[in-house]
Amino acid sequence: MPEVVFSVDQSKSMRDQRVPGHNRWHPDIPAAATVRPGSEIRIESREWMDGQVGDNDSANDIRDLDLNVNHMLSGPIAVEGAEPGDLLIVDVLDIGPVPQEKGPVAGQGWGYTGIFARHNGGGFLTDYFPDAYKAIWDFHGQQATSRHLPGVRFTGIAHPGLFGTAPSADMLRRWNAREQALIDTDPGRVPPLALPPQPLEVLAGHLDGADLERIGREGARTVPPRENGGNQDIKNFSRGSRVFFPVFVPGALLSGGDLHFSQGDGEITFCGAIEMGGFVDLHIDLIKGGMEKYGVTTNPVFMPGNVEPRYDEFISFIGISVDHETDTNHFTDATLAYRNACLNAIEYLKKFGYTGEQAYLLLGSAPIEGRLSGVVDIPNACCSLYLPTAVFDFDVRPTADGPRRVDRGQCAVTS
Amino acid sequence: MPEVVFSVDQSKSMRDQRVPGHNRWHPDIPAAATVRPGSEIRIESREWMDGQVGDNDSANDIRDLDLNVNHMLSGPIAVEGAEPGDLLIVDVLDIGPVPQEKGPVAGQGWGYTGIFARHNGGGFLTDYFPDAYKAIWDFHGQQATSRHLPGVRFTGIAHPGLFGTAPSADMLRRWNAREQALIDTDPGRVPPLALPPQPLEVLAGHLDGADLERIGREGARTVPPRENGGNQDIKNFSRGSRVFFPVFVPGALLSGGDLHFSQGDGEITFCGAIEMGGFVDLHIDLIKGGMEKYGVTTNPVFMPGNVEPRYDEFISFIGISVDHETDTNHFTDATLAYRNACLNAIEYLKKFGYTGEQAYLLLGSAPIEGRLSGVVDIPNACCSLYLPTAVFDFDVRPTADGPRRVDRGQCAVTS
Amino acid sequence: MPEVVFSVDQSKSMRDQRVPGHNRWHPDIPAAATVRPGSEIRIESREWMDGQVGDNDSANDIRDLDLNVNHMLSGPIAVEGAEPGDLLIVDVLDIGPVPQEKGPVAGQGWGYTGIFARHNGGGFLTDYFPDAYKAIWDFHGQQATSRHLPGVRFTGIAHPGLFGTAPSADMLRRWNAREQALIDTDPGRVPPLALPPQPLEVLAGHLDGADLERIGREGARTVPPRENGGNQDIKNFSRGSRVFFPVFVPGALLSGGDLHFSQGDGEITFCGAIEMGGFVDLHIDLIKGGMEKYGVTTNPVFMPGNVEPRYDEFISFIGISVDHETDTNHFTDATLAYRNACLNAIEYLKKFGYTGEQAYLLLGSAPIEGRLSGVVDIPNACCSLYLPTAVFDFDVRPTADGPRRVDRGQCAVTS
Amino acid sequence: MPEVVFSVDQSKSMRDQRVPGHNRWHPDIPAAATVRPGSEIRIESREWMDGQVGDNDSANDIRDLDLNVNHMLSGPIAVEGAEPGDLLIVDVLDIGPVPQEKGPVAGQGWGYTGIFARHNGGGFLTDYFPDAYKAIWDFHGQQATSRHLPGVRFTGIAHPGLFGTAPSADMLRRWNAREQALIDTDPGRVPPLALPPQPLEVLAGHLDGADLERIGREGARTVPPRENGGNQDIKNFSRGSRVFFPVFVPGALLSGGDLHFSQGDGEITFCGAIEMGGFVDLHIDLIKGGMEKYGVTTNPVFMPGNVEPRYDEFISFIGISVDHETDTNHFTDATLAYRNACLNAIEYLKKFGYTGEQAYLLLGSAPIEGRLSGVVDIPNACCSLYLPTAVFDFDVRPTADGPRRVDRGQCAVTS
Repeated sequence: MPEVVFSVDQSKSMRDQRVPGHNRWHPDIPAAATVRPGSEIRIESREWMDGQVGDNDSANDIRDLDLNVNHMLSGPIAVEGAEPGDLLIVDVLDIGPVPQEKGPVAGQGWGYTGIFARHNGGGFLTDYFPDAYKAIWDFHGQQATSRHLPGVRFTGIAHPGLFGTAPSADMLRRWNAREQALIDTDPGRVPPLALPPQPLEVLAGHLDGADLERIGREGARTVPPRENGGNQDIKNFSRGSRVFFPVFVPGALLSGGDLHFSQGDGEITFCGAIEMGGFVDLHIDLIKGGMEKYGVTTNPVFMPGNVEPRYDEFISFIGISVDHETDTNHFTDATLAYRNACLNAIEYLKKFGYTGEQAYLLLGSAPIEGRLSGVVDIPNACCSLYLPTAVFDFDVRPTADGPRRVDRGQCAVTS
Repeated sequence: MPEVVFSVDQSKSMRDQRVPGHNRWHPDIPAAATVRPGSEIRIESREWMDGQVGDNDSANDIRDLDLNVNHMLSGPIAVEGAEPGDLLIVDVLDIGPVPQEKGPVAGQGWGYTGIFARHNGGGFLTDYFPDAYKAIWDFHGQQATSRHLPGVRFTGIAHPGLFGTAPSADMLRRWNAREQALIDTDPGRVPPLALPPQPLEVLAGHLDGADLERIGREGARTVPPRENGGNQDIKNFSRGSRVFFPVFVPGALLSGGDLHFSQGDGEITFCGAIEMGGFVDLHIDLIKGGMEKYGVTTNPVFMPGNVEPRYDEFISFIGISVDHETDTNHFTDATLAYRNACLNAIEYLKKFGYTGEQAYLLLGSAPIEGRLSGVVDIPNACCSLYLPTAVFDFDVRPTADGPRRVDRGQCAVTS
Repeated sequence: MPEVVFSVDQSKSMRDQRVPGHNRWHPDIPAAATVRPGSEIRIESREWMDGQVGDNDSANDIRDLDLNVNHMLSGPIAVEGAEPGDLLIVDVLDIGPVPQEKGPVAGQGWGYTGIFARHNGGGFLTDYFPDAYKAIWDFHGQQATSRHLPGVRFTGIAHPGLFGTAPSADMLRRWNAREQALIDTDPGRVPPLALPPQPLEVLAGHLDGADLERIGREGARTVPPRENGGNQDIKNFSRGSRVFFPVFVPGALLSGGDLHFSQGDGEITFCGAIEMGGFVDLHIDLIKGGMEKYGVTTNPVFMPGNVEPRYDEFISFIGISVDHETDTNHFTDATLAYRNACLNAIEYLKKFGYTGEQAYLLLGSAPIEGRLSGVVDIPNACCSLYLPTAVFDFDVRPTADGPRRVDRGQCAVTS
Repeated sequence: MPEVVFSVDQSKSMRDQRVPGHNRWHPDIPAAATVRPGSEIRIESREWMDGQVGDNDSANDIRDLDLNVNHMLSGPIAVEGAEPGDLLIVDVLDIGPVPQEKGPVAGQGWGYTGIFARHNGGGFLTDYFPDAYKAIWDFHGQQATSRHLPGVRFTGIAHPGLFGTAPSADMLRRWNAREQALIDTDPGRVPPLALPPQPLEVLAGHLDGADLERIGREGARTVPPRENGGNQDIKNFSRGSRVFFPVFVPGALLSGGDLHFSQGDGEITFCGAIEMGGFVDLHIDLIKGGMEKYGVTTNPVFMPGNVEPRYDEFISFIGISVDHETDTNHFTDATLAYRNACLNAIEYLKKFGYTGEQAYLLLGSAPIEGRLSGVVDIPNACCSLYLPTAVFDFDVRPTADGPRRVDRGQCAVTS
């Protein structure tokens, strides 16, 4: 077991840890630890909402989440000798839920997937599912089941939803400027187009007073993926993967969290994936001057690992960039095409007895693959969604007999 | 070998075949053959441009292509007993280039990938690569190499880019209306937003005179994927896959073509993939009333086969929905995110000595995977592109030493 | 399509081809063709028994086979510049049944699997299945079904059962000596321990008279795998694989045949696999002095291809080196352990309604994997047999309810 | 985390645990715990030699091992309601080294592979490697490296080498009889043909006195796999696999241990695999009367999991059943064929600078696959060994240039 360089006591809020983490991006958040290139380290993690969601059958906690809290990140970890222009090599040696513990915090033997209400975050299909819902997942080794999704069992592809290096002060300014410009195009939108800096519930390690206030004013929110990596929610950052992060500040200042027991491509419910606290073991190294050497300017590069669960049979759904309700074409819009693929999958699954919400929760958390199939066949983008048939304990393939529809209960709802 | 129900003599234009195919979607194009559910059939195919591109080192033919010709489809094949509301089961038993022949037409031992000029079609990265280019690929069993892309060899995942059932007259009207509405938003755009019916170079089997003229006026162009399937360019429709097509007219009227020896997700160069003529063997069956049974309304459902080439190591590139040149955010725009992932991959490959055009051609035709990783992390979509490292005969992984840059020649250019 | 350097007219016996092949190993069989390193070539092939088996429902032809005929090989192909001590690189670019033909010879759209009678060849389980049986397989692209094995459909992993280089005169002498020594330990055994040279039905290209007589007297039978490769029956020599053959004579003299549409590890029925004629496309190259460079002395080295069919779920059977009928231990005997694994699989499949013969035929031809799991745990070797569950159109996994046993007919029997 | 039903303090011998395990098979060893069908349980495990081997650079501890100690098993676990004739369903939910610990016992962050000396156990190639050697492996998440095998890094496929149900008294008598009969054929052999009951270092839970003495006299040694499962050393019993064990005594009495971080098929060095202590999480269930329902009489049936590490490129070695030193044929002897395949692989690896001992240790512990390719081609069995090329940090494929030979040090030797 590698040295724990960021430890978490799951019985306490991130705020009350011996060395607290942070929930904004800012170059001035002090390093929680310093490591050498070549080190193997363990980072412990709180689930992204710092424990606001319970192992119960009500979605009220999802509905009422304080979205200023997230993402509760572990770090920053400074790397000796790292300088702007380097590539930081991060190997994901291992990752998992909280080891050796059962308890009330996500990651202690269980996790959750939520559908955010439109008025509190929304999600990919919020126009179709505007209310809050939840599914609780029980962990069985690398597999998960849910009492809210009977008939389903799958091997998770565990990964951190979020890892990134600190932005430089200049990069941070540019982020804030471009995101505010987007917000300004429709400031009253619900859900909003983007989240500006918000000086509420800010955490920045041991910083307090004016320092903390400044982080709150300037610090970028952690929701989007950006040039530093960040909340990329790439399910393939799993065990054995190697990530090359661009370095923008001395020491690189690597932070991460938002661990997922499993996730489908797109993490479509937003509070998607199976959220959990836990640990991640990393090997850290450097390629000096790697950004220039390899032409890396705007995003990390990575190599997935070789222990992703194998599935060989899929039932696949297609979407194109047409709003079918109004019969309106959108020019090569892959987002819309994937939304339609998701909706098509949901309609299909409803024929087997699931509610739409159950199907939506499933697509956010099961190991589905979302592919950009065609993006040039004007005017229609074509995206496809691959659902492993082995996820179900019944035969989900189309047959002449039609689907076997049975009562499959209900996910957790609000009261 | 199954019965050939649509035959092609590759020495002749599709127009001059004994039973010609067609290049528009219209319910009134007469069936070229009729088959029973349970049949195994072979359909022979011309390459999508009907032989306009040669096995040479000039991209002039790509620059000068007549885009009214495509796609030259084989069919329609009527299926006995098929009625609107059914699902047509189409198993891809086998697919390949023109068997037992070497010659001057794509598919006779070779294929091509082109970059369309902006003024003649364009492509996913036409803002960056506005001119015409070409790569010729030689087939070696299931593998391909190109004198225009030295250092590259890969196993193709052969598939038909295009298969679909005929639209009903009503559906056809809706297609034309919604696409014209899109064109009307920017009628002078180059390349255009969509292609309206165009009565030039129209082919509709043996129809001629007023019938053919009407097909030209009303027939939908074959470029986009639509509710009937069509030009979906899903690389995973390969050997062993099973597709469930919605049926909109009596007899289903299945047509297809645009065979690809290989393609990367997105087919990003548009004249992407490795284009070829050849054959496809199908098993045909029906699920009566399948659309209602399985909730299929807007697109086919499919199950990929189990002989896709295996790759276990990838170098992967990420893109987010930011225009990095202007630092402008686009709200969860997966198309832009994937475009950035492609650009990042191209910059990376240039460090190994490829030209940008070579890298672009490679990404369009090699078995790359394009994934919608995160689509809810406002405001930035995150897409990722997986490039198998085994495609290259050199080590393409990032190392401390930096890339080994060598002269890798040039693709075919215009003169 | 590569140049055909060995052509076969399937309407004629190998003996009556323009350039006949051969059915013994001998360095003096003249080359049928000469090729250069770097060539891509096509070799056409007769099925191993030269057409003695028909597409019918009687196993009489299996019972009455003339085993002096096999294997009918195509070649030898001389490679310019190849000298003893080199390694011959042979890439399997493609392989398949007889292209574009339907007909009465195995490979023309169909193939067969046989159980040899104990008195005419025997097989791995001849003590349990002493009589002749047969299954006919119909080809559907890369998949096969059999009217003699209802409920089964699988993707074949096509490969040549036999390829090899010619032995030197000295090596040939040693083969004959050591095999005769084995025969001499039990000369009357049925089936025999090995097959000595046999001057009946000998074919050696155009040789005749005294030359042919000498080949008959000296030529090694083609049944066993030996230092030159030969009848290795390795199912993984499929499309995309690369084999490095040791060279023992000038020109290497490569020959091959015994094409299989599919085979399970072990080819346990002997006339196992799905036998067919067809074609194989090869790329030929040399590593000069490669045997010494890589320490290759006694057998080829190879690299499997990357298009083997993917299966992710298996039901697996174990065997150990105990004769359970007599409760006798055999010291780390992997052959016995695998035999027990096969017997265990057969007992299992009988619970679903197959006859023992059907199950035996299935294990010989379906893509099962046979593994040497433990070979050091004295006194018992442990072997395991992996049967893909997707081979069956019913659920073959053990459940609390027990197997669903239905009548599954019968394979072809003798009359 | 499931309930721990068998706990181990790694600072103590198995003998000194609160509830000790056992190292013989006998139906009268009392259950250490009782569980219900449907339970999820954790079993902690000592490495098989109970801590006799150290993390150092001397092979003396391997040379001097007391082989009466092994295997130190955890259990037996009684299952409520299990009766002879049932099948016990055991799902391997998770498995790993000792969690959260670093220390001096194998499993605490490291493991070992040993070559047993001929006079103390021997191994598959003991005629070629008669002395003791050792390699120490460091764990990095799911990957392992060894200072004794530079240039190598691979993902382990962790599994228990040994799990089994208790034999009935009658079955135990038969085991002892048949193994003694084998020993009697060559009682002085070194290493011995089998191991009879041996009343030294016997452990049987809390039993002592006459009870323990009887276990020592009658209890079967744990080395071989038998009808109850036992030391099968099947590397594919990894995470996610499901095993169906026959039940021979009331309560089933399941025991196991001998955890391996990784192993190659065959576990050819005997003290092969990467040996470790650790934990295994199981789900337990029953199929009442399952042995009869599914025709299971002599061995467990199992289904491998879907998270085995993926490798897509292999360099493969072949062996046939000929003793090449004496040019002697052995009739379809798969054991000899696999031995030759191993020897061929070792010769090959020596060309890259490894010693024979290093190569032997590597083949025992890396995720190599050993296949029974042909077992009917009289007189020669043909086995093949698949070595993933990704195991090496250099190019191990044959090329025209020959291998790049460098000094690769040495494994641990005796002093």
